[in-house]
Amino acid sequence: MMVKELGRVRVGVLGAGNVGAALIGLLLEDSDAIEARSGVRLELAGVSVKDPTRRRPGIPGELVFEDAKALVTDPTVDIVVELIGGTDVARELGEAALDARKPLVTANKELIAEHGAALADAAAKAGVDLFYEAAVAGAIPIIRPLRESLAGERVRRVMGIVNGTTNFILTTMSEQGLSYTQALAEAQRLGFAERDPTADVDGHDAAAKAAILASLAFRCEVVASEVAREGISSVGSADIDVATRLGYVIKLLAVAERLESHDDARPEVSVRVHPAMLPRTHPLAAVRGAFNAVFVEGEAAGELMLYGRGAGGRPTASAVLGDLIDAAHHLRAGFSARPIPRVRAQMHPSEDLMSAWYLNMDVADRPGVLAAVASVFGEHGVSIRSMEQVGMRDEARLIFVTHVARQGDFMKTLEGLRTLDAVEHIGGVLRIVGDEEP
Amino acid sequence: MMVKELGRVRVGVLGAGNVGAALIGLLLEDSDAIEARSGVRLELAGVSVKDPTRRRPGIPGELVFEDAKALVTDPTVDIVVELIGGTDVARELGEAALDARKPLVTANKELIAEHGAALADAAAKAGVDLFYEAAVAGAIPIIRPLRESLAGERVRRVMGIVNGTTNFILTTMSEQGLSYTQALAEAQRLGFAERDPTADVDGHDAAAKAAILASLAFRCEVVASEVAREGISSVGSADIDVATRLGYVIKLLAVAERLESHDDARPEVSVRVHPAMLPRTHPLAAVRGAFNAVFVEGEAAGELMLYGRGAGGRPTASAVLGDLIDAAHHLRAGFSARPIPRVRAQMHPSEDLMSAWYLNMDVADRPGVLAAVASVFGEHGVSIRSMEQVGMRDEARLIFVTHVARQGDFMKTLEGLRTLDAVEHIGGVLRIVGDEEP
Repeated sequence: MMVKELGRVRVGVLGAGNVGAALIGLLLEDSDAIEARSGVRLELAGVSVKDPTRRRPGIPGELVFEDAKALVTDPTVDIVVELIGGTDVARELGEAALDARKPLVTANKELIAEHGAALADAAAKAGVDLFYEAAVAGAIPIIRPLRESLAGERVRRVMGIVNGTTNFILTTMSEQGLSYTQALAEAQRLGFAERDPTADVDGHDAAAKAAILASLAFRCEVVASEVAREGISSVGSADIDVATRLGYVIKLLAVAERLESHDDARPEVSVRVHPAMLPRTHPLAAVRGAFNAVFVEGEAAGELMLYGRGAGGRPTASAVLGDLIDAAHHLRAGFSARPIPRVRAQMHPSEDLMSAWYLNMDVADRPGVLAAVASVFGEHGVSIRSMEQVGMRDEARLIFVTHVARQGDFMKTLEGLRTLDAVEHIGGVLRIVGDEEP
Repeated sequence: MMVKELGRVRVGVLGAGNVGAALIGLLLEDSDAIEARSGVRLELAGVSVKDPTRRRPGIPGELVFEDAKALVTDPTVDIVVELIGGTDVARELGEAALDARKPLVTANKELIAEHGAALADAAAKAGVDLFYEAAVAGAIPIIRPLRESLAGERVRRVMGIVNGTTNFILTTMSEQGLSYTQALAEAQRLGFAERDPTADVDGHDAAAKAAILASLAFRCEVVASEVAREGISSVGSADIDVATRLGYVIKLLAVAERLESHDDARPEVSVRVHPAMLPRTHPLAAVRGAFNAVFVEGEAAGELMLYGRGAGGRPTASAVLGDLIDAAHHLRAGFSARPIPRVRAQMHPSEDLMSAWYLNMDVADRPGVLAAVASVFGEHGVSIRSMEQVGMRDEARLIFVTHVARQGDFMKTLEGLRTLDAVEHIGGVLRIVGDEEP
């Protein structure tokens, strides 16, 4: 195990995008204050960039590296910060750092969601830290609390609003009465959404974070591709209106849940991303705009929520800096954070998940239709909690809220409803979360 | 530095009250699951109790110690958990543990608020951990994030709802329309308030927590007696009604604020506990009942909030357990958490604090009174943002909201108003926090 004797700890930063630039700013301009607060002197050893010919005001030219690998293996570099993104090059460079017994700090959710277990093994083998606080929910301390504060806690469920783009869109639809398309355009105009918004609105970004949260909360291995995923593009203004009227808000949730099981060595978990209706009184309901929050339910701790800025250069750089300081202290003491014990989880079948549902559909307004519709619910054992009918010329809109039902049964109900002649259109279909019936 | 070679780490628990009993339950019944999650085997070595003759179902008789000192110095005890409370005996036992190079985990806010610096020095000298996550806001991870995640962050302000009793009372007054006395009685009936509620309602409990939060947030020494303190007993139903009407909620806040200063070695801070009006849209406004939350504003991280159960046996024991696991891992590696660098802070004079104010007073309803009242504000340079007059027989109630003003100027305004013949009664006086004017 390497012990860094001297005061200065030299940091190699891979990538000078938004987060990289903010981190470099902190390291170059704030290092006296950081040393006063933390007791450790961080020194920027170099920054690797894709295009070294681009002018980068604020970064001294001699610190700019074109060859990232050379920076990682530079013997004067003590700690490597990976802010490149993606999984191929990032993985290779991250492994090179760990192989050289250099702690690795990364903000890369895809990398951790896909290769977290392999990297953790490499870090444990090298006896150095692998930290990734910034990979989930930006500045919000969530990785460290799950890893350390809740190390002894049986976590039952983690629910997060971990994608600022979709939360901005849903908040704007709800508060300004915009359609999905209008709200997306607004998010793009303000820089909260990419020109190609797929990764956000289809839930890919949230799924990677859900995998990381589940892995930590349940001490198991879950990768992004195992996460069941629904995006928000099917959420319509009508659903938002109904939600508001019924006392709910619609949020895109990343959910990691441990099912009751008697085998602690092989926990059964469900990890998924989907929009859901949350009661307005739920702490997550108040998370507006581009903010993020993670709600944790533990057996002893009860309910916890961690809230803050989920993205942005400076907030994310702040999380990276916290990791860096910790890694620097550990390095000087020849210590590294304990590896997380990991078991292979069993994925709970989606059909067996229990949830209440909201369903909005347009039917022909003629006698007998409601009875036909209701009997489809009954056939599949789905019990209706409330129904509301709104007349619309020669159609009627029916809005159902069910009692808690098996997802498989509800899906069969949907199929059955689609076969009915009288059903013109099935609109919003959303789970209702957070007001579990007794 | 002691290195614990073997797998089991033996824990001595001082005190078997609410938290102690919950912790003992976790250690005795859940140690397999704790080991699976954390990789460390915790073993209960003994429990010291005040009255060893009392039957304690669930605690094997041979683990019960009457002599706490003997448990602390027992050579088979590796880590000491102090759950006695108070400052005298607890300090002595805590120091004995640290002197014997045993990590100390405590949930004792008075102890840390009063003797935290001395204990931290003793821990650093012994090269062992001093952890106190449970001393502030129960199960909520706030100490660790402030100590580690935000180690590099310039924190500007920390505002906490850190006393569940007062938050329950204020929530009940607001939501059920009860008077202060009725709400206090309800809190006592439900076990949320002590029979003598002074420590909670007068803000002593919150002041100790504010001192701890300030010390960590600003890396300085602040003790409980330096915290300016106002309780909630003067908050009346009329204030609650006005707050609701104006879009605010009233909360008892523990505030630690760093003032602008050019001397990082001697930061100027203000640490105080007082009820305040918060905009309904502020994240802290949604913290209801006995829940706690801490809102942190940092220069790079932006706004963070950590929310959860602030008290109760199991939630508090969960926080103690997280500390215990960390201390056990460190002990096995011969490592200890880095000491927090501390500077001597300068307390910012209360009179110089800037705030908007709400003021509610009854005046005689006759010509010229409003002019006289308004001129008192003007004399002291306090600018009125809004005024509202409600007629009441031959009196009128005036409700003022000021622009941001110096506290000293506002206090002189209050004095001046009290000397006016026409002023019958000055009712609620509250700061307005969280919607700072530009």
